[in-house]
Amino acid sequence: MYVIDNARIAPTGLPGIAHRTLASGADGLRSLSVWLQTMEPGAATPPHRHDCDEVVVVLAGRGELRVAGEVQAIGADQTIVLPAGVDHQIVNSGDEPLRTLAAFAATPVGVALPDGTPFPLPWAS
Amino acid sequence: MYVIDNARIAPTGLPGIAHRTLASGADGLRSLSVWLQTMEPGAATPPHRHDCDEVVVVLAGRGELRVAGEVQAIGADQTIVLPAGVDHQIVNSGDEPLRTLAAFAATPVGVALPDGTPFPLPWAS
Repeated sequence: MYVIDNARIAPTGLPGIAHRTLASGADGLRSLSVWLQTMEPGAATPPHRHDCDEVVVVLAGRGELRVAGEVQAIGADQTIVLPAGVDHQIVNSGDEPLRTLAAFAATPVGVALPDGTPFPLPWAS
Repeated sequence: MYVIDNARIAPTGLPGIAHRTLASGADGLRSLSVWLQTMEPGAATPPHRHDCDEVVVVLAGRGELRVAGEVQAIGADQTIVLPAGVDHQIVNSGDEPLRTLAAFAATPVGVALPDGTPFPLPWAS
């Protein structure tokens, strides 16, 4: 029960984004969720924010982080730090899959669009 | 301020373990810390536990998780789920470096030995 295989990454309802929740409340955690995602070239998250801290480690590929009115380049071996409540968007602006690990200080993870509208996730978080 | 390079992984006071805190309270987070570690063959953490949930994603190498009186094999593309308070030990029983990413639902991260003695970390967490 303590060791999980990182298989079964699967397409989601979000275009070009495949997802696997590696660990969450379903595994006995109370305030931590970890996701593995692959984003195809040209794909992007919607602009959104979380009600908890988030850290994204880029494992492979290149892209952009759009946050606080700026665009920052991201790539393998870089880490994105997103304190709770910061609106952000991740875009695969490269020509290969963007592979990321994301950790959240909550389970389930709350998501809202910039106008505050709750954004229901298409996966268990 | 939102994008950090994963450089400066450095030796620690723990034999055979190199560490980098990728993100923590120093970066504006309130309840999340993410670490990158490399453990040399033959090295091990002490048996210990945390006062918060932990998830470890194995990026490369092979080893063992010792938890709840059992030894479980771990390797690349596996995830270790450690709810708060569970005593555990990670051992590099393989012949190549064991590279891990660990997420914790707290910053700083509290560590105790199995007998409850606080274990001061040799890095900022």
